[in-house]
Amino acid sequence: MCQHPDPETYMRRALVLAQQAAGRTSPNPMVGAVIVKDGRIVGEGYHRRAGEPHAEVEALRVAGEAARGATMYVTLEPCAHVGRTPPCTDAIIAAGITEVYYAIADPNPLVSGKGHAQLAAAGIRVQCGVCEAEAFELNRPFFKHITTGRPFVTAKFAMSLDGKIATVIGQSRWISNAAARRRVHHLRNRTDAVLVGAGTVIADDPSLTTRLPDLSPDSIRHPLRIVADSRGRVPLSAKVFDPDLPGQTVVATTELIPADHRRALVERGVDVWLLPASDDGRVRLSALFDELGRRGMLSVLVEGGSELLGACFCERLIDRVWVFMAPLIIGGQHAPGPVGGSGYALLSQAARLGRMHVELIPADDDESAAPDIWIQADVSYPEEEVCSPVLSRKLVQSNHLPKSMADGR
Amino acid sequence: MCQHPDPETYMRRALVLAQQAAGRTSPNPMVGAVIVKDGRIVGEGYHRRAGEPHAEVEALRVAGEAARGATMYVTLEPCAHVGRTPPCTDAIIAAGITEVYYAIADPNPLVSGKGHAQLAAAGIRVQCGVCEAEAFELNRPFFKHITTGRPFVTAKFAMSLDGKIATVIGQSRWISNAAARRRVHHLRNRTDAVLVGAGTVIADDPSLTTRLPDLSPDSIRHPLRIVADSRGRVPLSAKVFDPDLPGQTVVATTELIPADHRRALVERGVDVWLLPASDDGRVRLSALFDELGRRGMLSVLVEGGSELLGACFCERLIDRVWVFMAPLIIGGQHAPGPVGGSGYALLSQAARLGRMHVELIPADDDESAAPDIWIQADVSYPEEEVCSPVLSRKLVQSNHLPKSMADGR
Repeated sequence: MCQHPDPETYMRRALVLAQQAAGRTSPNPMVGAVIVKDGRIVGEGYHRRAGEPHAEVEALRVAGEAARGATMYVTLEPCAHVGRTPPCTDAIIAAGITEVYYAIADPNPLVSGKGHAQLAAAGIRVQCGVCEAEAFELNRPFFKHITTGRPFVTAKFAMSLDGKIATVIGQSRWISNAAARRRVHHLRNRTDAVLVGAGTVIADDPSLTTRLPDLSPDSIRHPLRIVADSRGRVPLSAKVFDPDLPGQTVVATTELIPADHRRALVERGVDVWLLPASDDGRVRLSALFDELGRRGMLSVLVEGGSELLGACFCERLIDRVWVFMAPLIIGGQHAPGPVGGSGYALLSQAARLGRMHVELIPADDDESAAPDIWIQADVSYPEEEVCSPVLSRKLVQSNHLPKSMADGR
Repeated sequence: MCQHPDPETYMRRALVLAQQAAGRTSPNPMVGAVIVKDGRIVGEGYHRRAGEPHAEVEALRVAGEAARGATMYVTLEPCAHVGRTPPCTDAIIAAGITEVYYAIADPNPLVSGKGHAQLAAAGIRVQCGVCEAEAFELNRPFFKHITTGRPFVTAKFAMSLDGKIATVIGQSRWISNAAARRRVHHLRNRTDAVLVGAGTVIADDPSLTTRLPDLSPDSIRHPLRIVADSRGRVPLSAKVFDPDLPGQTVVATTELIPADHRRALVERGVDVWLLPASDDGRVRLSALFDELGRRGMLSVLVEGGSELLGACFCERLIDRVWVFMAPLIIGGQHAPGPVGGSGYALLSQAARLGRMHVELIPADDDESAAPDIWIQADVSYPEEEVCSPVLSRKLVQSNHLPKSMADGR
């Protein structure tokens, strides 16, 4: 007799439930739970936000007495420790659950396996690994944060098919179509913070809010807006500093910011974070991401500009890219590309993309227009190579180019 | 009784036959013909190269007596005039064909409709328009050439996902994977001429031959190699000037070329074309494409560099793009993009892409690598706008940016 013909089916349901709180649970993971008895779902739930009940407790509450003798499917190993809420293992044992499937172990080395052990010690059959890959993907930002202390960082840019984010005179509105821009708002809606450089704020004056007309204002999340502005160049009149804007704006700066500008920002309700500077006088990005991690931010979206993205790639801080390519050729030697800075000198140093997802995004406001191309990909970095402008200059000066460059084309 | 349940089926066969001579028929079009009697194919043929029999004549030869009372499917209106070969209409009438389907009218206004009229006057039932769109697509270069006198021009470039064709120190081998590079050789194999700028030859020293190891040397076509080099900067030691290279190299230049350099080129078997210069002293591209058209070249592939492609786009000379995007981020404010030059100042001036075909090209020599993305698209140009560096400068100086740029983001 097989009581559980397809654990994946129930686990997938639990994953869908978990996903409903995307961008709402930080610093906690998204978790979903389903309780099944006699082939019927008798309870389900998900973790809605930090401080509210865990998914397991929600599902048990719905199931009530039906939980006795039932099987629980949960997307993450149940917790065995007291956090803001009591341990889930106690609740599961008390409710009389007899079997638990969870997708993936808790990544926190201090607690990983403890939930499993406690349940097993209480005589519950426990099995790990159902839909493990999906469960890992669901909580990539949480897993990165708990193992490194830093948020999961996505770089987003929109460019023409020849790699330009603006024309030579700086016109950039709009390169991508309206449907592609809506995707960015959906991404902001499930992201903890967005980061932009001072130059971008000065040039484009973005508001960086989440604008999704189909959603009720209550259900929209405005990520923390962070402006990297080492010297306090962005004028007080910038939209991001408007006190009426929903959500919160932060200026990440250094001691170079003028004291009166800093005061004026704070008076407008802007948070000012004084951070260490890197050698070139700019905000040290690793320190900024450390700070974001300390504040429980799991996911950050870097929206440009070119110089900031260049520095982020150079320091290997980007985990994923979202690229929108519009069906245009802009051209221009001096028209900017999406990733500036010094760049990688050698192809062997370049950041590599994997797990690519490519999708066409039709222009829903113009039927005659060709679609945008959307590419999502994970970023990895070659092992030994480093991004070194010094090396680049030396190579240029010595004309010491790698052998491979002399091969025939 | 329906003698022809599906004319499209036979016409598609004729199109497939025609395609076999891709890149071999210039200045003639590719044409295929199928002869059907009692639901059976009794003859078929295609035009193999200029000077050899037309498709209709080939198919009639194969069909022999079986052509009497049969139906012919041919991808282009049969010719009614004496060219290098006698008119096909005479042969069709003489063979006793009773019905002719052709896909598309002859685009030459001097002869269009004459073939149709002659066949009809001889009592043959004639019908036009079966698979017309496919037949037009098959011979896009021929149609452009006969209506404008210029070849159909494809721009090809390979770049990283952030729009870089080389690193900041110029390393570009290889950005695209081996399978993508093979595609370029297949494209060269069916193209009449390839065009590159002097800077690219100096930097990369390409041979620009068609290298397809799976094909016999006899069946490979090496397109005419054209180096745009207004001042004769490319050294004699460049691979493209090697007298042992299969095919022919041309230097398209101006009166600025030193006389001794010109003589040395000719001695090596290189053709030197003296062409008018544009205002900036470079070879006038419109004159070059006119010259190529005069010489019966239907298709040209522009393989870079960045400056040449920029000039081609600025002068609206590109009909199609082939873009290969590698799963890399290279970065660098000064790393080159694929389309340089002055660029379009306003987004409303930018070249637009349509009929996009997007395809992933797996790296067949490295299973762990992500695929390249290949994009083919047709280029169109907005009607009233022109590419004007003068306008760009004025806009920059006056800060007179279009209203749309002041909108909120």
